[in-house]
Amino acid sequence: MSVIQPSQPSAILLISCPDRTGLVAAVTNFIFNHGGNILALDQHVDQEEGAFFMRVEWTLESFNVPKEAISAQFEAEVAASLGMRFELHFSDHIERMAVFVSKQGHCLYDLLSRWQSGEWHVHIPIIISNHRDLEPVAKQFGVEFRYFAVNKDNKREVEEKQLALLSVVKPDFIVLARYMQIVSAEFVAHFPNRLINIHHSFLPAFIGAKPYHAAYGRGVKIIGATSHYVTAELDAGPIIEQDVIRVNHKDSVDELIRKGKDVEKTGAFARGAVSPAQASVGLQE
Amino acid sequence: MSVIQPSQPSAILLISCPDRTGLVAAVTNFIFNHGGNILALDQHVDQEEGAFFMRVEWTLESFNVPKEAISAQFEAEVAASLGMRFELHFSDHIERMAVFVSKQGHCLYDLLSRWQSGEWHVHIPIIISNHRDLEPVAKQFGVEFRYFAVNKDNKREVEEKQLALLSVVKPDFIVLARYMQIVSAEFVAHFPNRLINIHHSFLPAFIGAKPYHAAYGRGVKIIGATSHYVTAELDAGPIIEQDVIRVNHKDSVDELIRKGKDVEKTGAFARGAVSPAQASVGLQE
Amino acid sequence: MSVIQPSQPSAILLISCPDRTGLVAAVTNFIFNHGGNILALDQHVDQEEGAFFMRVEWTLESFNVPKEAISAQFEAEVAASLGMRFELHFSDHIERMAVFVSKQGHCLYDLLSRWQSGEWHVHIPIIISNHRDLEPVAKQFGVEFRYFAVNKDNKREVEEKQLALLSVVKPDFIVLARYMQIVSAEFVAHFPNRLINIHHSFLPAFIGAKPYHAAYGRGVKIIGATSHYVTAELDAGPIIEQDVIRVNHKDSVDELIRKGKDVEKTGAFARGAVSPAQASVGLQE
Amino acid sequence: MSVIQPSQPSAILLISCPDRTGLVAAVTNFIFNHGGNILALDQHVDQEEGAFFMRVEWTLESFNVPKEAISAQFEAEVAASLGMRFELHFSDHIERMAVFVSKQGHCLYDLLSRWQSGEWHVHIPIIISNHRDLEPVAKQFGVEFRYFAVNKDNKREVEEKQLALLSVVKPDFIVLARYMQIVSAEFVAHFPNRLINIHHSFLPAFIGAKPYHAAYGRGVKIIGATSHYVTAELDAGPIIEQDVIRVNHKDSVDELIRKGKDVEKTGAFARGAVSPAQASVGLQE
Repeated sequence: MSVIQPSQPSAILLISCPDRTGLVAAVTNFIFNHGGNILALDQHVDQEEGAFFMRVEWTLESFNVPKEAISAQFEAEVAASLGMRFELHFSDHIERMAVFVSKQGHCLYDLLSRWQSGEWHVHIPIIISNHRDLEPVAKQFGVEFRYFAVNKDNKREVEEKQLALLSVVKPDFIVLARYMQIVSAEFVAHFPNRLINIHHSFLPAFIGAKPYHAAYGRGVKIIGATSHYVTAELDAGPIIEQDVIRVNHKDSVDELIRKGKDVEKTGAFARGAVSPAQASVGLQE
Repeated sequence: MSVIQPSQPSAILLISCPDRTGLVAAVTNFIFNHGGNILALDQHVDQEEGAFFMRVEWTLESFNVPKEAISAQFEAEVAASLGMRFELHFSDHIERMAVFVSKQGHCLYDLLSRWQSGEWHVHIPIIISNHRDLEPVAKQFGVEFRYFAVNKDNKREVEEKQLALLSVVKPDFIVLARYMQIVSAEFVAHFPNRLINIHHSFLPAFIGAKPYHAAYGRGVKIIGATSHYVTAELDAGPIIEQDVIRVNHKDSVDELIRKGKDVEKTGAFARGAVSPAQASVGLQE
Repeated sequence: MSVIQPSQPSAILLISCPDRTGLVAAVTNFIFNHGGNILALDQHVDQEEGAFFMRVEWTLESFNVPKEAISAQFEAEVAASLGMRFELHFSDHIERMAVFVSKQGHCLYDLLSRWQSGEWHVHIPIIISNHRDLEPVAKQFGVEFRYFAVNKDNKREVEEKQLALLSVVKPDFIVLARYMQIVSAEFVAHFPNRLINIHHSFLPAFIGAKPYHAAYGRGVKIIGATSHYVTAELDAGPIIEQDVIRVNHKDSVDELIRKGKDVEKTGAFARGAVSPAQASVGLQE
Repeated sequence: MSVIQPSQPSAILLISCPDRTGLVAAVTNFIFNHGGNILALDQHVDQEEGAFFMRVEWTLESFNVPKEAISAQFEAEVAASLGMRFELHFSDHIERMAVFVSKQGHCLYDLLSRWQSGEWHVHIPIIISNHRDLEPVAKQFGVEFRYFAVNKDNKREVEEKQLALLSVVKPDFIVLARYMQIVSAEFVAHFPNRLINIHHSFLPAFIGAKPYHAAYGRGVKIIGATSHYVTAELDAGPIIEQDVIRVNHKDSVDELIRKGKDVEKTGAFARGAVSPAQASVGLQE
């Protein structure tokens, strides 16, 4: 995953399809014949399932297909006949990231800092929360903050308001940065592969609430965090990234929570949640 | 955990009890008053549970209580009045380690190598298996190998034979070095805190059979292994040590198994399974 | 290291001296006799050098020596006769941390976030820099920012001004949070064991400038970062904490720098630089 | 790196050359046009140096060029005109690994165990040593052991004898498995990119002798090990693999040595030293 902008824009294709001979040649010929120079190509075959996965990035400098026409052209020349599913991304596209938070600020601080310092090439149009605690942080970084009081009775109604808001904001993807609410299957369905959650455990261990308490209770020697796409099933969506840290028998639950925060915000969140487009996974998983 | 023998024997006390003032002073005064010099002391209080845990090691060089009398003396002078549970170990005691294996040899090779090269100060009187595959390995290292054919009908009977054998061999502890059989609660009950299993997952994720297949299916980015005391409940006993290794989306199940072997034998097994007496856990957890 | 405040204040003694029998007993008796309850004790002997190291923490709730008298009392009752060097800290003391930065903001953002969110119990009275780049960040978090233009001719003069400023600010310790200037031995001498640097390599590899370029050139598979006390010799002071992350042959220097930032700010900086008083090292190393 | 044999043999090309457009297409067309199916392709461009690196693996099942003709055919059809340097390997080729040892057995035990249990698909025709200590281990595993007494006067003479022996044994590569002798530049020159050393530090930290003593002296918090190709300059050849483990201030030098052994044999040695052909590096670095 590259979050550093190269000096010139490049195009990135994520491709998957049933395996057969000639797939790599077909794609690379398409790029070569139109004047592109490949910067990186990563391809493998899952031999058990006979599935082909490929990520290829090439420079657009002397590529003779205009950006807006590449997708259709690739479909027509290559993908259609070979049964390929693909996603096309451009390195100079600044993706719009909406952020949901509750009361805990460590992930929010971290992403706002990376964004403000120019480390992340994203735009953060909005922060949505079910608590007002982090409103000053949003303000301090100059990002709009929208508060929605949530209780067990108004959940569906609040989600509808959030969806209405998001339909205006039009984020490319949404990050639940320690948003302590379970979003409904209906909500999830609006953002397939575009809704990322940071779960504060090394999934699939300790699904659900209070994973650090559960980890303490089980006496594990290592704790972790996981960023994953949200699906209808709780904490069961495709894993994007995971990270871990050692703990020891002297660490209290509070100590696990504190150590875990660093793993959540850096190892799981920052590495996994920049954007589905930049992820090494994405379509492929 | 120290597996290197110091130049002179030392005594190790593992202590746990409800917390109160004066406990450390009581123990250290006992050692000081009898002429011992403390080499290392590690103590902490679990404030949530009000529980006191302590490990202390001291030299016996000028200690004026004979080794065989220390336990009774400590009980009489300190432990009884303060309600302490304790275990006493000596650094120059060579513990007897019985090993159970099935077909996979990587943990067995590793432990036999450490033992033969003098890295581990244990004695391995016997290797017990439900398959003959590793008999040549046992022979090559000069350790007695006993084969017990196990099927679903004779399990209880076999365990009785194994118990009879072990009652003669008298191991200080037993290691299930990838022994692919579930031992009965009756068997377990004979070896409280003395029966160690190596489970090939980062517990509590992927309890039970085929954890690498399950890990592959879940798409985790990190796999692990766990050494733990065996209790009546499957893979749920106290964790001794854990270790992990990164995997990626290109790794097949076979690749996970291969990478996992190194974590099992080194990070989980060797670090966790030397001996309960040398473990940093033990009585305390 | 505990950065979570316990519910009641505790005292922490860091002790070192030549080893002899009775040291632990002497210290624990002092605490016990005055009514203190030990929360944690960590002691070991460096047998090669015959050196004794101890860290002990106890509650002050029913301790019958007033906080301000403990140091003198411990000196008189215990330390003087046993030749102990010691430091005394209190868990409820908010230490004053002065921060030096240049242009790179990732460590600054991280420490300001931890401080503002209450994760760190420190006070940050001032940020000092040789560039104006991070002044808006300081402002945004409400911390005073002082700019000193440095060139090769005015270095001594600037340091004198900085020392004058610090003599008013009176920080308990100073953190060079990616301050890209070498401070003079004279400056260092004012803050023995109180001046912490974050070096962006796994010391002692890649001492000095541009360590990521050097790491790239050497083709290492793992990069790291180190927090250490500053001494007169460049990057050679006692190491407080280190952390590492895997890189691969595809990573450019920019990619190493980006991955390294996370290790610097979290693994090395945050874990090592909270405060010498809270460090597991300190007097002992 | 795959050390698991796939069900059918595959060919692996490692390619490097100056970057230009059409390189990937040229290679993949070659494979496709001759009926090969690509299993995995990993390619990237070092943009600073304008260098192209590629590893591609394809099945030989329906490939219409005989194994022994592939190299010449690829040279003629593709490599010559594009200025490519390349290496060709086959997954079913059992490489011959010669091993040099001194007195320490942990790496030797580990590689012999992996070989004997079938984990590694190599042949080990000979173990060469400057001490007799590990002769019983070689014998136990049924591998020929040759002893050469080395002193400061006969070093050149011994190396000539070793070279004569190796010219008969014809290893594909040689592993110095903790061979505590510096081999001469003349010796090295016989095995370019085929002579692998395991150095017991996280290079480039602690080059040369007694790295654990040096690490202890410097007070590092993490130790490591490195496998690298041997070149004329001490411990300066291209790094193949590295691994690390945390240590703490209580660990003695002996403890560092013990912990380091596990990192040497598993993380650095086994992962890096299987064979240059299977390494993810190889020609590319």
